[in-house]
Amino acid sequence: MSTDSSSVAEALRARRSKVIGPHSPLFYDQPLHVVAGHGVWLTAADGVDYLDAYNNVPHVGHCNPVVVRAIAEQAARLNVHTRYLHEPVVDYGETLLATFAPHLDKVFFTNSGSEANELALRIARQHTRSTGVLVTDFSYHGNTTSLAEMTTGLTTAEPLGAHVRALRIPDVLSDPRSPDVVLAEALEEAAAAVASLQAAGHGLAALLFDPLFTTEGLLHPPAGYVEGLADLVHGAGGLVIADEVQSGLGRSGSAFWGHELHGVRPDLVTMGKPLGNGHPLGGVVTTTRLLDEFGSANMYFNTFAGNPVSAAAGAAVLQETADRELQASAAELGRHARKTLEELAADRPSVSAVRGTGLFFGLELVDDDGRASAGRAKRVVEDMVRRGVLISRIGPRDNVLKIRPPMVFEHEHLELLVDRLAASLDEVEAAVR
Amino acid sequence: MSTDSSSVAEALRARRSKVIGPHSPLFYDQPLHVVAGHGVWLTAADGVDYLDAYNNVPHVGHCNPVVVRAIAEQAARLNVHTRYLHEPVVDYGETLLATFAPHLDKVFFTNSGSEANELALRIARQHTRSTGVLVTDFSYHGNTTSLAEMTTGLTTAEPLGAHVRALRIPDVLSDPRSPDVVLAEALEEAAAAVASLQAAGHGLAALLFDPLFTTEGLLHPPAGYVEGLADLVHGAGGLVIADEVQSGLGRSGSAFWGHELHGVRPDLVTMGKPLGNGHPLGGVVTTTRLLDEFGSANMYFNTFAGNPVSAAAGAAVLQETADRELQASAAELGRHARKTLEELAADRPSVSAVRGTGLFFGLELVDDDGRASAGRAKRVVEDMVRRGVLISRIGPRDNVLKIRPPMVFEHEHLELLVDRLAASLDEVEAAVR
Repeated sequence: MSTDSSSVAEALRARRSKVIGPHSPLFYDQPLHVVAGHGVWLTAADGVDYLDAYNNVPHVGHCNPVVVRAIAEQAARLNVHTRYLHEPVVDYGETLLATFAPHLDKVFFTNSGSEANELALRIARQHTRSTGVLVTDFSYHGNTTSLAEMTTGLTTAEPLGAHVRALRIPDVLSDPRSPDVVLAEALEEAAAAVASLQAAGHGLAALLFDPLFTTEGLLHPPAGYVEGLADLVHGAGGLVIADEVQSGLGRSGSAFWGHELHGVRPDLVTMGKPLGNGHPLGGVVTTTRLLDEFGSANMYFNTFAGNPVSAAAGAAVLQETADRELQASAAELGRHARKTLEELAADRPSVSAVRGTGLFFGLELVDDDGRASAGRAKRVVEDMVRRGVLISRIGPRDNVLKIRPPMVFEHEHLELLVDRLAASLDEVEAAVR
Repeated sequence: MSTDSSSVAEALRARRSKVIGPHSPLFYDQPLHVVAGHGVWLTAADGVDYLDAYNNVPHVGHCNPVVVRAIAEQAARLNVHTRYLHEPVVDYGETLLATFAPHLDKVFFTNSGSEANELALRIARQHTRSTGVLVTDFSYHGNTTSLAEMTTGLTTAEPLGAHVRALRIPDVLSDPRSPDVVLAEALEEAAAAVASLQAAGHGLAALLFDPLFTTEGLLHPPAGYVEGLADLVHGAGGLVIADEVQSGLGRSGSAFWGHELHGVRPDLVTMGKPLGNGHPLGGVVTTTRLLDEFGSANMYFNTFAGNPVSAAAGAAVLQETADRELQASAAELGRHARKTLEELAADRPSVSAVRGTGLFFGLELVDDDGRASAGRAKRVVEDMVRRGVLISRIGPRDNVLKIRPPMVFEHEHLELLVDRLAASLDEVEAAVR
């Protein structure tokens, strides 16, 4: 960044701080001042293009022209709530539901993943007449009060609710024991958590989980774990809520929705981030029975949700995802990326594991003694932006590089990413020695 | 509506019901199938234009070209979260904050009024280390769990929280006693509610109120009531949250923000509905001190909120509101409308009161014995749509006609509205006799 553009960025940061405050998070020691986006590229104020290997919200690419046109045309024609009949919300709902298993045949639209998880939990609590919730250790599902009370993956002033139990997710990549032993122990722990909720009088309303366990650091539980967990929850009368904000819309390559990777049958599926390619859009997909139960006992209305512009944005994202075969691309490119990243890791002691699936990767970084190294991860992330590539980091020890590009990422972009990553890791390894 | 278009509407309704269910509310016995909007007009599928005297979300008019262009251009240029620096959110934040009193100098952006009220309550609970909340009898502030627990204005399965007290709002239009007596009694009741929250150990976190008391039926409390309430709340260590979803952006004619009508100094102001003219946008405006306190104790982030497209939509709404002098228009047209509606009411025994201010009116309907008549109100609303004008009804007895058009409503539209309303009231009065 030139001195000129860096002083412009500093001035903007100062103005920003006066308006939205100094706590609103910013990436990088020198925050990036962006002015334009296109496909997998973000352009900074100084004209430099950055390869975006971080953002999943622009699922079909930054400023995807099909989505932009759909929004612009519908905004010019009609934008109104759903208490009048209009076609776009019905068209979109039908297309969206067609991507789910037949029992998931109804949708509530919302404006965000937070609103979606809030609603799913209301439905679950009312259905079960219980309040207990199972989440996972180091997870995040939204910013409302009741979600803050079950947040384990970032700082909230609210303590973990008495009605909440956070499950430690087993991980076969880091646990040296046999997967069977790991599985049995983890399911026993889950059963104990359910029993403890019941003993305390909370009962069990729901399990709320991200099928890719991304915030948790992209953990790989043993086969059968999520299925066993879902059986346990259903057996105790609770509902299973799959939060697909991270794992949905073909991101995993192997399945359109993340919960399908585990062969489970959720009662509620929540959606957000990529659903409208950045347009505020979320939703809860559920069964006719649960919708009827909740809908007949509550006057639920959401002013903006399901408006024709949001519906047009969502429909365009589904259309582009299908037309450009982005799930297949995530599978194919994902396999190739995995192989390349594993080769890269094999030569570099600082990378202890390659995690993830499809177009969501995590490189776990360790220091020379094999201990989780948040410092190295931070240095790589900062070094990568200087090399023109955007990534981030996740996990409870903040040492897993988070690589989760728009789904229109292609081979040439992967090559650039891997090239820069190799150089960055080499530099960081050399610097520490 | 022709038979043809009515069968199309029926088919669409059936498809809608299969997708979003039969409980998602629809206006009118024969729901209106809309396909386009422009200014104060909504066009139905059969080509008929309806005068919109109901919708406040399209504040600067349906499909306002300035707003549509701002959204389209920004969506084509950049749409990304606020963890990178970008200018639109700062520009918009500065313009928005300039409309508030100097102590309200920080803003959190959200995607809806529900998200805004959720956040304001989190801030208030953390600041006061208390949970008690005062709301008003027959009010609604959003659809999340914690807001459902304080909803008195519509059906929710959640009972009123033990930490919630609903104040009966005094109304000088219906209470025959002197305003001084009404005021003293109402403030005593409020003091008793605060004392009861304290005695139960909840303490007082906040008062959450709509400055126009719209859902409550557009009540007119005596002068000094809201000020007295705010003093009481502050005296007990609680915060005052003005929910400006209904009353903001010049709607009242006399003030840009509704709380200014009462001369109170809120600690938090929440916004939603009209802020983005239908684009999902909300926010919480507060003080530097409260933002710092909350921001330093919580990693608050909201993926879509404050994105450049939402900011561009919000900025265009403020621009149009200023350029077209919509607050002044609401004041001027509102005075004229009030006079006209009062004349209309004087001749018609079915109208017992004209309520509201600026471009938000309520006509209270009664039967021949002077009792609240939801039946007459419903008949007028249904008759009005047949006459091509959209209105609705509110209040605990569902007998107050709700007239709240886009702010670009003009004299000619008012004349049309009043003409149709007079005919409608005459027909309904005649039918009942």
